[in-house]
Amino acid sequence: MNISSFHPPQRTLMGPGPSDVNPRILEAMSRPTIGHLDPEFVRMMDEMKTLLQYAFQTKNKMTMPVSAPGSAGMECCFVNLVEPGDKVIVCQNGVFGGRMKENVTRSGGTVIAVDDEWGDAVDPAKLEVALKANPDAKIVAFVHAETSTGALSDAKTLVELAHRYDCLTIVDAVTSLGGVPVLVDEWGIDAIYSGSQKCLSCTPGLSPVSFNEAAVRKISQRQHPVQSWFLDLNLVMAYWGEGAKRAYHHTAPINALYALHEALVILHEEGLEDTWKRHQKNHLALHAGIEAMGLAFIAQEGERLPQLNTVTIPEGVDDAAVRDALLQDYNLEIGGGLGALAGKAWRIGLMGHASNKTNVLLFLGALDSILTGMGAKINRGIAVQAANDFYA
Amino acid sequence: MNISSFHPPQRTLMGPGPSDVNPRILEAMSRPTIGHLDPEFVRMMDEMKTLLQYAFQTKNKMTMPVSAPGSAGMECCFVNLVEPGDKVIVCQNGVFGGRMKENVTRSGGTVIAVDDEWGDAVDPAKLEVALKANPDAKIVAFVHAETSTGALSDAKTLVELAHRYDCLTIVDAVTSLGGVPVLVDEWGIDAIYSGSQKCLSCTPGLSPVSFNEAAVRKISQRQHPVQSWFLDLNLVMAYWGEGAKRAYHHTAPINALYALHEALVILHEEGLEDTWKRHQKNHLALHAGIEAMGLAFIAQEGERLPQLNTVTIPEGVDDAAVRDALLQDYNLEIGGGLGALAGKAWRIGLMGHASNKTNVLLFLGALDSILTGMGAKINRGIAVQAANDFYA
Repeated sequence: MNISSFHPPQRTLMGPGPSDVNPRILEAMSRPTIGHLDPEFVRMMDEMKTLLQYAFQTKNKMTMPVSAPGSAGMECCFVNLVEPGDKVIVCQNGVFGGRMKENVTRSGGTVIAVDDEWGDAVDPAKLEVALKANPDAKIVAFVHAETSTGALSDAKTLVELAHRYDCLTIVDAVTSLGGVPVLVDEWGIDAIYSGSQKCLSCTPGLSPVSFNEAAVRKISQRQHPVQSWFLDLNLVMAYWGEGAKRAYHHTAPINALYALHEALVILHEEGLEDTWKRHQKNHLALHAGIEAMGLAFIAQEGERLPQLNTVTIPEGVDDAAVRDALLQDYNLEIGGGLGALAGKAWRIGLMGHASNKTNVLLFLGALDSILTGMGAKINRGIAVQAANDFYA
Repeated sequence: MNISSFHPPQRTLMGPGPSDVNPRILEAMSRPTIGHLDPEFVRMMDEMKTLLQYAFQTKNKMTMPVSAPGSAGMECCFVNLVEPGDKVIVCQNGVFGGRMKENVTRSGGTVIAVDDEWGDAVDPAKLEVALKANPDAKIVAFVHAETSTGALSDAKTLVELAHRYDCLTIVDAVTSLGGVPVLVDEWGIDAIYSGSQKCLSCTPGLSPVSFNEAAVRKISQRQHPVQSWFLDLNLVMAYWGEGAKRAYHHTAPINALYALHEALVILHEEGLEDTWKRHQKNHLALHAGIEAMGLAFIAQEGERLPQLNTVTIPEGVDDAAVRDALLQDYNLEIGGGLGALAGKAWRIGLMGHASNKTNVLLFLGALDSILTGMGAKINRGIAVQAANDFYA
């Protein structure tokens, strides 16, 4: 066997996540490992909860990071809140709504599907039809920011509707948290999960979650034990709960938590409002360049995520060849389409630390050059200038 | 809110894990994040599988790290292999056998319990009685190295027995891998899981697993879908599988995987045989010191884990006060007892990078001094010399 230490290349990460990680976060991650019950670590956990409450804009006590990626955060919400036989309305407008359905079924629940076109926001009118037709539904689940299409849904309205029909809500904020407003208490979201590697610009592997009192009540009154031992919140909270006394549940991923702590300190330093503004500004600059080039966005105006820009691949252009050229010639990663959009769209992330002028200009210049070299029908040589004009 | 960057103290980690992390691993972890489908990352994943096959001494294709801590690795084995209604014989001789039972029940299986005293190895004779009494049992599960008691069981014999009665085997190697021989192919283990933060001396958060062909067959022939989407091996393997084409399942914890890769490179550099010898040597030195002091081990001779030494707390000595003094005055962490051994035993880890002469001597000197200060009935002032004599 001839395997030596792995030295990754230095990429610019403008895909759907992971996004560019602030060097401060990488440095924090490499600090000395301490025990998961060390008093100093417990103090850090308390800070982490406060920082996450700020990020989610909530006072929920049950706010913490799940010790695994966003997919496990999603599963944590569903296995704890869905009991066998529960009817769950899932609004699907992309890949991740489909994953929610899988989670409902595997938790023993019944899915009531509300489908929207991929690229559109979730339509509240369709949700209301489903709520009226299913008065016994217990939960409404939807994706706030669809990472597969770049569409932003109106979480506030959808949660209001769900509550009017006595349903709890599970909201996927994997891509939205830290990029656009996510106001858990103001909107009344009952259960929410996110990921560390999107607009928080942390390394991948952790999933912040938050549950309000109504959600905690449903969990504590379950008739069947939670099917996952690892994700059972009744057990997890004995470790992440209040006070100095923490019961061992599993060994927390210590250094990954150092990293998330630092990412949240950075978020707080900049402030949520300014972070959202920065994401919007760089999105609009990218948009100016993409439009100047003659390319089109998948998501409609008003429903576009500033942190994830989904652009239609021009006719006749080889998706993979363009992404390969970006990676090989510019060390720049963007994402391809997922599911129904595979081969039809590029996904350009401007998330967290990666949402900056340098990245916007680098990407537009590189895309312009690559498409020109391929003879694609675009307006050549003006995209970078259009973005620069926007910034001026 | 007044929260700034977290700077952990520098501890010596001689508890039940996490263990001291080699600085090479912390440095590897802080290398630039790249995408989870980046060709360079895929190349690293292939190396990771080869390195894990070496660590587990197996040719199993389905060998990879689960993207979450050891508890999730345990759950991964049970939710994939246990189908509703399956009878599973669980041998329990400590805390982690109890957790296995929880996993069986939550997976819809029925537990047949084989109980041994905490501190003893699993008794093959008792297992055989259970196998004879339950000819319809499908799986035998046991903990190779009980982290709660420091007892090592005879995995080879237990697996042979299980196979003689047509059962598959699930083996917990969280604390054994890298500290004592774990010979997956030679012993015929069907499914096995471990943790990154014990004798591999990596940061916590990942769980290496391996499944042989018989286990893969049972998983692929399941009548019911795996209840966990995140841990469904049919889906996970589309990402960790063969060749350059990897299907997105979840976002891998990139930097944590850099760390595990480096930990495994270090393991391979030293070589398994030499690693095992080093663990044994430092254990015997610690043992010489502990015996000289007049203290006793919980596990019997011949069943003692060199990497996890469980020592009876002398009568009248305050468990927590000793551990606090070690932490505050020496920056040294050891573990308290778990479950039935809470308050009755200390758990002294000499795992991976932490299994060295410096740690043995530091700990013995510190314990001698603290117990002397408390007026405990021990043989004073000779433990360090006894260990030094052993090394000489």
